[in-house]
Amino acid sequence: GPKEQASDYANYFCSYASLYHQKQMLTDHRRMQAYYSAITDNAELFAGKRVLDVGTGSGILALWAAKAGASKVYAVEFTDMANHARRLVAKNGMEGVVEVIQCSVEDLKLDAKVDIIISEWMGYFLLRESMLDSLVRARDRWLVPGGLMFPSRCTMMWGLVNDEQDRLSKQQEYIRTMQDWYSFKGETKEFYGVDMTVLEAVYEEEQRGYYILSSFWAELDKGQVLGEPAVVQTFDMHTCTLEDVQGVDETNVSIPLEEDARVSGFAGWFTADFHGTEANPCPCPVTLSTGPENGYTHWGQQVFHLQVPHDVVGGGKVEGTIAVKRQKENVRLYDVHIKHKNVLPTGEDKSPLVSVKYAMP
Amino acid sequence: GPKEQASDYANYFCSYASLYHQKQMLTDHRRMQAYYSAITDNAELFAGKRVLDVGTGSGILALWAAKAGASKVYAVEFTDMANHARRLVAKNGMEGVVEVIQCSVEDLKLDAKVDIIISEWMGYFLLRESMLDSLVRARDRWLVPGGLMFPSRCTMMWGLVNDEQDRLSKQQEYIRTMQDWYSFKGETKEFYGVDMTVLEAVYEEEQRGYYILSSFWAELDKGQVLGEPAVVQTFDMHTCTLEDVQGVDETNVSIPLEEDARVSGFAGWFTADFHGTEANPCPCPVTLSTGPENGYTHWGQQVFHLQVPHDVVGGGKVEGTIAVKRQKENVRLYDVHIKHKNVLPTGEDKSPLVSVKYAMP
Ligand SMILES: Nc1ncnc2c1ncn2[C@@H]1O[C@H](CSCC[C@H](N)C(=O)O)[C@@H](O)[C@H]1O
Ligand SMILES: Nc1ncnc2c1ncn2[C@@H]1O[C@H](CSCC[C@H](N)C(=O)O)[C@@H](O)[C@H]1O
Repeated sequence: GPKEQASDYANYFCSYASLYHQKQMLTDHRRMQAYYSAITDNAELFAGKRVLDVGTGSGILALWAAKAGASKVYAVEFTDMANHARRLVAKNGMEGVVEVIQCSVEDLKLDAKVDIIISEWMGYFLLRESMLDSLVRARDRWLVPGGLMFPSRCTMMWGLVNDEQDRLSKQQEYIRTMQDWYSFKGETKEFYGVDMTVLEAVYEEEQRGYYILSSFWAELDKGQVLGEPAVVQTFDMHTCTLEDVQGVDETNVSIPLEEDARVSGFAGWFTADFHGTEANPCPCPVTLSTGPENGYTHWGQQVFHLQVPHDVVGGGKVEGTIAVKRQKENVRLYDVHIKHKNVLPTGEDKSPLVSVKYAMP
Repeated sequence: GPKEQASDYANYFCSYASLYHQKQMLTDHRRMQAYYSAITDNAELFAGKRVLDVGTGSGILALWAAKAGASKVYAVEFTDMANHARRLVAKNGMEGVVEVIQCSVEDLKLDAKVDIIISEWMGYFLLRESMLDSLVRARDRWLVPGGLMFPSRCTMMWGLVNDEQDRLSKQQEYIRTMQDWYSFKGETKEFYGVDMTVLEAVYEEEQRGYYILSSFWAELDKGQVLGEPAVVQTFDMHTCTLEDVQGVDETNVSIPLEEDARVSGFAGWFTADFHGTEANPCPCPVTLSTGPENGYTHWGQQVFHLQVPHDVVGGGKVEGTIAVKRQKENVRLYDVHIKHKNVLPTGEDKSPLVSVKYAMP
């Protein structure tokens, strides 16, 4: 309802209204390089075309599209950042081409459809923030048949990792917070005559949720990834439906390891391709990867720590499933349900199947 | 309207729904001691009385009121913390006396008025969070004539401070963030062909707002307070109106210093008295001070740094005004407008009058 939307918008858009936050994205050079190449190196696709930039923020992508030769760029932004984008566009001499429109893209009115949609909508582990919903709606409403999406395809990746130090320090913090609780309980009884025992389980659950059953942002080193990353799901931006982008149904993932290794957790990230379509491929295809093989991006990776690490025997594997579901209370956030077991080279289980639900905060 | 209320509630109540946050309050021993003494040492006032606890959280105050002999305690809490409070009450044997009611106190329905209202509604520098509005509404609707408020009176305090190190480090951070901007601007022009100059003033304003024109939480040492703290405003909880609690109109504050001193800023905090009324005074009056003279409370003090410190000459003073106004975008937050000058012992101005508006985040 409108009340839910109001509080969603208040929470979600708040950070994007600050230039500080926009600058964090604008100084993410892998992100910038990928979009810049995708647009400028494929300028011939933009020449004379009508373009829509969904969530223009500072206006950067719209400006590049205009410089690449677009005849018209509609740059849509919900927050007051739209005013800054408008001024940036003017000062960079593209007032005649880029039209900044401040509204939710869901409320956009154009006189005709567009040939290309550009957008940087991706969140942690691709889906977080659920801005993809807005993109799909904009595409279904405003892209001509056969039009192009930039990016054209996005893939959720999954890897085994060893970051045992971080895993242990999170466990330590959890233990410390529970020790605090025990002193608190003692003091409250002694000084204030109230027995807090009945709330202990709730507190423990809350803290476990925070330290143990949540994923964490990390900038992993490529040496921390064990074996080959697996594809969880691929979204074709030209065809994916609102239903497709709700999340990921339970999907099998099995990652074999050639050598003995301690697996302390999983990591999720994404790649974004700028390839055009089969009918209209990009002359210079570009891929943006936010994986550990590639150095810093502001997305980093989401790490899901195991409660007990798997000591995998060389030739064995970690096998299981992953599902990614929207949280009921906040559709922009996700839970990641992981089932996993340690399998020996013989095919026998080295561990029972463990099933854990993590929140991605 | 209902949309504004929905997003206000979503933002405001979120943290209070976590036991972690409630525990932070429950381990604030000055806070706990003050309320505990105010209720238990004045048990005779509670004996056989009907009590309302506005915002019961974990239920702690309601429990104490019951133990002090109240015949009935209505413990009202908006968040799901109400469930925990209910269980805590039961396990501590007060089910028959304390009734936990989950609702906004604005929507409360009782069969009759109450004799006493207890509440811990105070925010940073007293007014932050604006929960006092809810208390005043509850009092006007549910307190019997001549009934008692716990606390009975709250006072906003104001002091001169020297925390030059912190002031300088905030200024350094501001300088660093602007240096970052200049490199960013250079790189964006060089690598991506976009001139960001037009956004520089906006970025500077945003960062100045954050580092320079905001107050900060601090736990000041009593030695850092210069001269005698001044009273900004006193609220009598029995009589203050919704209009009174909107903020503080421009109020004169003049603080003389006996010795030469460098004033690097101002600090705001509050005291809360549990004194009852003239007709019905507390046998054991209690005062809670959150000032630097008293050691840690979770409220600490709000510090407002000067851009240029005042070197006050012994026998001189810092003179000016303070006004506290609600922010338009979020009525639970406040701006603090300070005018100040350095005055010599002769009465001549040592500095011009400076006028600055700080946000209290
Ligand atoms: N439904 C919607 N309608 C309009 N703008 C939206 C939107 N959902 C998200 N946004 C905006 O989309 C932007 C995503 S961040 C990307 C900003 C910019 N395109 C860049 O690449 O640097 C944010 O500024 C956010 O406010
Ligand atoms: N309008 C309102 N109606 C009901 N509860 C409210 C309220 N405004 C704030 N609250 C609740 O008031 C509490 C204030 S914090 C104090 C908690 C508790 N009385 C203690 O002293 O430890 C929070 O739990 C908050 O959720």
